[in-house]
Amino acid sequence: MQEKPNILLILTDQQRWDLLGCYGASQCRTPHIDNLASRGVRFNNAFPLIIPCAPGRAALFTGRYGHITGVETNGGQLDQSLPNFATELPRAGYNLGYAGKWHVDHQKNPSDWGFRCKRDFPKYGYPASNINMPGIKSGAQKDSQIARNYLDYLNEKNLEPPELIEAFYAQGNPGQRNRELHGLHAGTIEHNFEAMVASETVELMRAYAQEEDPFFIWTNFWGPHSPCIVPEPYYSMYDPKSIPEDPSFCDTLENRPYVQTLVSRYWGIDPNNWDEWAEITARYWGYMTMIDDLVGRMLSELETLGLAENTLVVFSTDHGDNMGAHKLFEKGPFFDEESFRLPLIAAHPECRQPGRENDEFVYLQDLFPSFLEVADLQPDIVPDTQSILSLLKGEDEPTGRDSVYCQFNGQIQEHKSRMVRTRTHKFVFNQSDIGELYDLENDPHELHNLYGLETHKTLQESLMQCMQDHMERVKDPMLGEFRRVRYIY
Amino acid sequence: MQEKPNILLILTDQQRWDLLGCYGASQCRTPHIDNLASRGVRFNNAFPLIIPCAPGRAALFTGRYGHITGVETNGGQLDQSLPNFATELPRAGYNLGYAGKWHVDHQKNPSDWGFRCKRDFPKYGYPASNINMPGIKSGAQKDSQIARNYLDYLNEKNLEPPELIEAFYAQGNPGQRNRELHGLHAGTIEHNFEAMVASETVELMRAYAQEEDPFFIWTNFWGPHSPCIVPEPYYSMYDPKSIPEDPSFCDTLENRPYVQTLVSRYWGIDPNNWDEWAEITARYWGYMTMIDDLVGRMLSELETLGLAENTLVVFSTDHGDNMGAHKLFEKGPFFDEESFRLPLIAAHPECRQPGRENDEFVYLQDLFPSFLEVADLQPDIVPDTQSILSLLKGEDEPTGRDSVYCQFNGQIQEHKSRMVRTRTHKFVFNQSDIGELYDLENDPHELHNLYGLETHKTLQESLMQCMQDHMERVKDPMLGEFRRVRYIY
Repeated sequence: MQEKPNILLILTDQQRWDLLGCYGASQCRTPHIDNLASRGVRFNNAFPLIIPCAPGRAALFTGRYGHITGVETNGGQLDQSLPNFATELPRAGYNLGYAGKWHVDHQKNPSDWGFRCKRDFPKYGYPASNINMPGIKSGAQKDSQIARNYLDYLNEKNLEPPELIEAFYAQGNPGQRNRELHGLHAGTIEHNFEAMVASETVELMRAYAQEEDPFFIWTNFWGPHSPCIVPEPYYSMYDPKSIPEDPSFCDTLENRPYVQTLVSRYWGIDPNNWDEWAEITARYWGYMTMIDDLVGRMLSELETLGLAENTLVVFSTDHGDNMGAHKLFEKGPFFDEESFRLPLIAAHPECRQPGRENDEFVYLQDLFPSFLEVADLQPDIVPDTQSILSLLKGEDEPTGRDSVYCQFNGQIQEHKSRMVRTRTHKFVFNQSDIGELYDLENDPHELHNLYGLETHKTLQESLMQCMQDHMERVKDPMLGEFRRVRYIY
Repeated sequence: MQEKPNILLILTDQQRWDLLGCYGASQCRTPHIDNLASRGVRFNNAFPLIIPCAPGRAALFTGRYGHITGVETNGGQLDQSLPNFATELPRAGYNLGYAGKWHVDHQKNPSDWGFRCKRDFPKYGYPASNINMPGIKSGAQKDSQIARNYLDYLNEKNLEPPELIEAFYAQGNPGQRNRELHGLHAGTIEHNFEAMVASETVELMRAYAQEEDPFFIWTNFWGPHSPCIVPEPYYSMYDPKSIPEDPSFCDTLENRPYVQTLVSRYWGIDPNNWDEWAEITARYWGYMTMIDDLVGRMLSELETLGLAENTLVVFSTDHGDNMGAHKLFEKGPFFDEESFRLPLIAAHPECRQPGRENDEFVYLQDLFPSFLEVADLQPDIVPDTQSILSLLKGEDEPTGRDSVYCQFNGQIQEHKSRMVRTRTHKFVFNQSDIGELYDLENDPHELHNLYGLETHKTLQESLMQCMQDHMERVKDPMLGEFRRVRYIY
């Protein structure tokens, strides 16, 4: 067996950190991921450099912030000249494998970058569009390649496209009444396109198990991102009535930037009726448990193939989902813990203290230099990220970070904002609106915005200085506008 | 004498429409411009397609909105391929002349475009920088060409650079305490760089008076844009104590987008002390009267040269200045009449009804196709603007417009917004903040924002439909974001 370990990176999309049992989920069951955590390290303070999806994934692909990658919003163009997983790891002899959602680069697909990839899903590439799941109304992806890919998978398995049996359409916004927020499809887990992701990952592992060289396989589920359309038993697995109202669902949003009110209205889910949110949450959890079953399937195959002992397995997501926190849905112009705190689990074959937790501030995108170090490559020294390989191995090395700094540039509406988060506080700079300042110790649900209060002037000032330090260090072009209002914000 | 009339276009910068006597100014004296109005037509409902300076000027140069010109903010790049004054008028035999402020195109200067221009002022090109007026602290333009130009002018006139004798620096924003808002400089009007603009215009008129072909001379004052640094007698011409508080100075801005509060604080002028604003206003008026004297000088020369009978003279500005209205200064993310309503005066040799007023909705940028029509050229049919030549001649032709549609994309802070204004109402779409809806008949000072009120739902809906019609007609890329929130705004 080769000396360098294989790397299996499993990413979900829009998954709240607290959906996992190992992170203390109240009801949602994720036994396979919990088991992975028990073999490795679980990070309690992992954050993304930038969200939403494409900016976060491009940042992960390169270890750089959005203003460096070029992908600052979901429509951005990746700087093709940046070192990335696909250009670097093969230099150390790694075979590349890819399965599932891409959304890293609008110009090139995984195959174009040199990944072995059975089916490329260009751009957002959501397979369950109105072409591929009879009855579904939403989904913008009518691209024939995306349509063909999922149908090909179903054909291979001798399955018919599963019909949408029932679905929920929120009615609050007349412009969005044809969008599924959750639903039940006929058939089984095998009919779901997520099973295709697991199936392709297994095929990649089997193929690379025959080879001398190590592999880097990057597996990307589309879920539990809405619409949460799942088969039984997942659809009915959790009882909406058992899901208590989110502690911050009471927020009126009056003391937050108005754009949050717009985004809240946009989805059309009843802001005065938790029952609608509980229904969606139940299916979101079901979706998560379905993915967990597929993770179990892949990890089991890794054992069967004898690869587990020499494979670093990392599980994470690109960002979370407010899912009712502050009456907000999905991600957006809000930096709540529900959207920004990430699950991050690493099981390294050499893990010193299996099952341990790590409280250091880390970025999802630290995985880029870390994986390069796994491959015995020297990652470039950049101000954005740093290798946390020793932490992934369960060691106690401090990162030296007292705070994290995260970017957001727009989703639904253009709205640029920046967050700095320390161990006790969070400050958000909203480019043309009020700021946000939360005391995370005394107000963990971020219900009391302390921005601009005379009583918290010194605190805000020190957090703004901290933010400016980050901006200067990473050369964020937002610095100019931030400085302009520095003393009057 | 040639058949086609000459065109003299005189533009000020950031001038409120109500500074002119002919528009009913209470104290500010502008006898020469008033006299021009008495010989021609004065428009009561003139608006810009877009502000601030560079976007508005690029729009005027081409007759197109900002998303077409490429100059959407002061830093934008002009689409060099668009037909413009410099490419079109020479085709009809016009000689081109230019004097003063440019700020149309960051790539090419007036001379590069083929204007006869004694001194190019690239980009913003403000001559009274800290190099050229001893004692002045503000002014970012240290470009050697800009420095040399003004000093050259002073040398020609055997004058020394005028020293800044006193100035006002607002103290409210620690980041902006070194910026003159008004001041007194030594010397006379001849020392002021605005006299250079008039002097160069006179030289152009004299030169072109010798030629067979008609001319288009575009004269651009930098003022009365702040800093209002003028010599005596203009500095002491108006008594600040005689200037009553602006009727909307009482606005707390609480029911407007927060970005307006930020911009209000940015300038650091005391929001609770009208006296500071009155001081600035007095110098702003003095600046206007000084410019009026220079306009008189140019128009007198036009008479002397025997050109007046065959020259269309147009006077306008790029945008206004809130100057204390709503505690706001200069222009910015606010569509108040003080910033958006423009003075527009045209004295055509063939004017049918000298001294008349015209109440049609017109755009400053209608001058582009109008001047082409003056030159017997066929302007392209575009949805943005239309020739108003018959109106410039004092005729009664309706434009067919029931509303105007104006763009704004940022100043100090990025903030995209759009306005639609009918004869009775104004609706503003602020991309990620609350809207604004004002009843101009019952609330002429725009103090009562009716946005989102149940009582005005139908009205807002019809104005939003009107806005969407404009967006679709001119293909404004903002349409996508507007549609997204159409039913929830």
